[in-house]
Amino acid sequence: MKNELRLGVVGATGAVGQEMFRVLEQRNFPYATLRAFASFRSVGKKVQCKNEEINVELLESNIFADIDIALFSAGSSITKEFRHVAKTAGCLIIDNSSAFRMDDDVPLVIPEINGNDCKDHNGLIAVPNCSAIVMLMAINPIQALQPIKRIIVSTYQAVSGAGAQALAEFEQQTKQIVVGEAPTLKVLPYQIASNLFSHNTPINDEGYNGEEWKLIHESQKILHLPTLSITATCIRVPVQRAHSESINIEFISGRPSVEMIRNVINAAPGVKLVDDSERNYFPMPLEATGGDDILIGRIRHDISNPNAIDLFVCGDQLRKGAALNAVQIAEFVLSNRLL
Amino acid sequence: MKNELRLGVVGATGAVGQEMFRVLEQRNFPYATLRAFASFRSVGKKVQCKNEEINVELLESNIFADIDIALFSAGSSITKEFRHVAKTAGCLIIDNSSAFRMDDDVPLVIPEINGNDCKDHNGLIAVPNCSAIVMLMAINPIQALQPIKRIIVSTYQAVSGAGAQALAEFEQQTKQIVVGEAPTLKVLPYQIASNLFSHNTPINDEGYNGEEWKLIHESQKILHLPTLSITATCIRVPVQRAHSESINIEFISGRPSVEMIRNVINAAPGVKLVDDSERNYFPMPLEATGGDDILIGRIRHDISNPNAIDLFVCGDQLRKGAALNAVQIAEFVLSNRLL
Repeated sequence: MKNELRLGVVGATGAVGQEMFRVLEQRNFPYATLRAFASFRSVGKKVQCKNEEINVELLESNIFADIDIALFSAGSSITKEFRHVAKTAGCLIIDNSSAFRMDDDVPLVIPEINGNDCKDHNGLIAVPNCSAIVMLMAINPIQALQPIKRIIVSTYQAVSGAGAQALAEFEQQTKQIVVGEAPTLKVLPYQIASNLFSHNTPINDEGYNGEEWKLIHESQKILHLPTLSITATCIRVPVQRAHSESINIEFISGRPSVEMIRNVINAAPGVKLVDDSERNYFPMPLEATGGDDILIGRIRHDISNPNAIDLFVCGDQLRKGAALNAVQIAEFVLSNRLL
Repeated sequence: MKNELRLGVVGATGAVGQEMFRVLEQRNFPYATLRAFASFRSVGKKVQCKNEEINVELLESNIFADIDIALFSAGSSITKEFRHVAKTAGCLIIDNSSAFRMDDDVPLVIPEINGNDCKDHNGLIAVPNCSAIVMLMAINPIQALQPIKRIIVSTYQAVSGAGAQALAEFEQQTKQIVVGEAPTLKVLPYQIASNLFSHNTPINDEGYNGEEWKLIHESQKILHLPTLSITATCIRVPVQRAHSESINIEFISGRPSVEMIRNVINAAPGVKLVDDSERNYFPMPLEATGGDDILIGRIRHDISNPNAIDLFVCGDQLRKGAALNAVQIAEFVLSNRLL
């Protein structure tokens, strides 16, 4: 590990990139220098971090010799293009794209769950899919109580998960509906304002879309449970930010008491119990927005199966679901001297 | 049955009442006279049906002698108050409230599924909870293929299901967000625009809310399967109209092919297959809005259980989930001479 960390953010002007600078500042991440990179369209723009104004530079192969850790959130094709040159130059990529998540030689990491997998990094550590992170932050403390057999999850995914342009389209459609105009469709395939639709990633031969497939298989990899049974239905909803998930968990045999589950969630890092039946107060995306914690509530024994429980979770997919998790991986790498 | 049917709509100015007049007109329902009733606050208002303008009258005990069928959608307390007097006067109530749905002597009817239960009416036939209707319209043709063991459902429920005032509040909040004002809360417990929350009916000792409890137990009654295992998580989402549901169905043994399921749905009344994986085109609340059919899609074998399938459905909860189902019950009563 270098004494003076040279950090880079690739994809600096995107929704996740923007959030990355906020997280680095809020956590007072210990970089010596911070540089911001993007495509030629964004060169000349400026970003802010820790009261410093940073010029956005063009992403080119020769930059990696001067960067120790690069936080990538510029899409799979960019990671694929620059992975080799970054590794050769000795720069560690922490990647938000799905490009290499399922590769055997790439750790896929949620630091609270499998941080130690970072130790086998081969120049790249992948940040999991946002829906997988939100779900597993709730699953992990519970599976420590009792082994899990099967998960059935339905998601309520915010528009910002589809990127900054999709979010702008949602806001434009909302305005158009208010003034009585027909909503414009350019980025998303269907109207999202006052509507919802099945996640618009391609459907595979098994009938699952790409988002569901990631959620299922990335979860198995992160938990080191390659045969864990999971089914998922991923839906995009008209919420600006923070994903929600309705989760049914079946244990191999029996189930912990609701009180035991509440206790492990209260004790676990990165999650917060929001489960007040008296006041009918439970996790909501509006309250997860901008926060670091995954909110967990509606914890109850499933009356349809003696080994199952139900719960409902919300988490900010731009923070813990992306930028925060990436920065936490960098922190883990630094504190464990893995550079 | 009288030769000249005298029909009444009780709760004529509410969200369901308004929809009732549209459905009666569209189906050219064969009434001789149609009267509209509401509380004193709405007396003097006018409603429209079949090009006729109808004065809203005060709901009083003495009206039932002159009404053969009364379509009630004025809340449980109104049904409880007038049930006895209506029965004594020989008026059949078709009730949208939950007041008597689970009573042993009250048929709870979706005509496509258990219309024959109307034959045992005791002066009142109940219309099921909207979420139960939307779900069971999909479940019923599928369970005819193979018996069902367990259902796990997560709902995405539209704001209009909470009534006309809640819908107005959602529209007001949307406008307030667009102009940068803080959203006003009066009817609903939490902001609904760009947010979602657990259905705000009281939570029982088992940890389920009132909506979930209705969905579970009404479904068992309608299907005549009192021990069918069901769990439900009911969520209110920022959609104006039409409920969506993510449904996992486990069969007792084995499962039908996806093709067989598609075929029975194509053949069943009141449902429409919307399941185009090539175009990523599936049920959406916007397309269910104002329509009579429950839209069914995302039909696939669940990879987590060899006896289970997943699907996603949408239905207009003011139409098939309320007004249309009530009018269809009245049609069944008339065609089977059950008055």
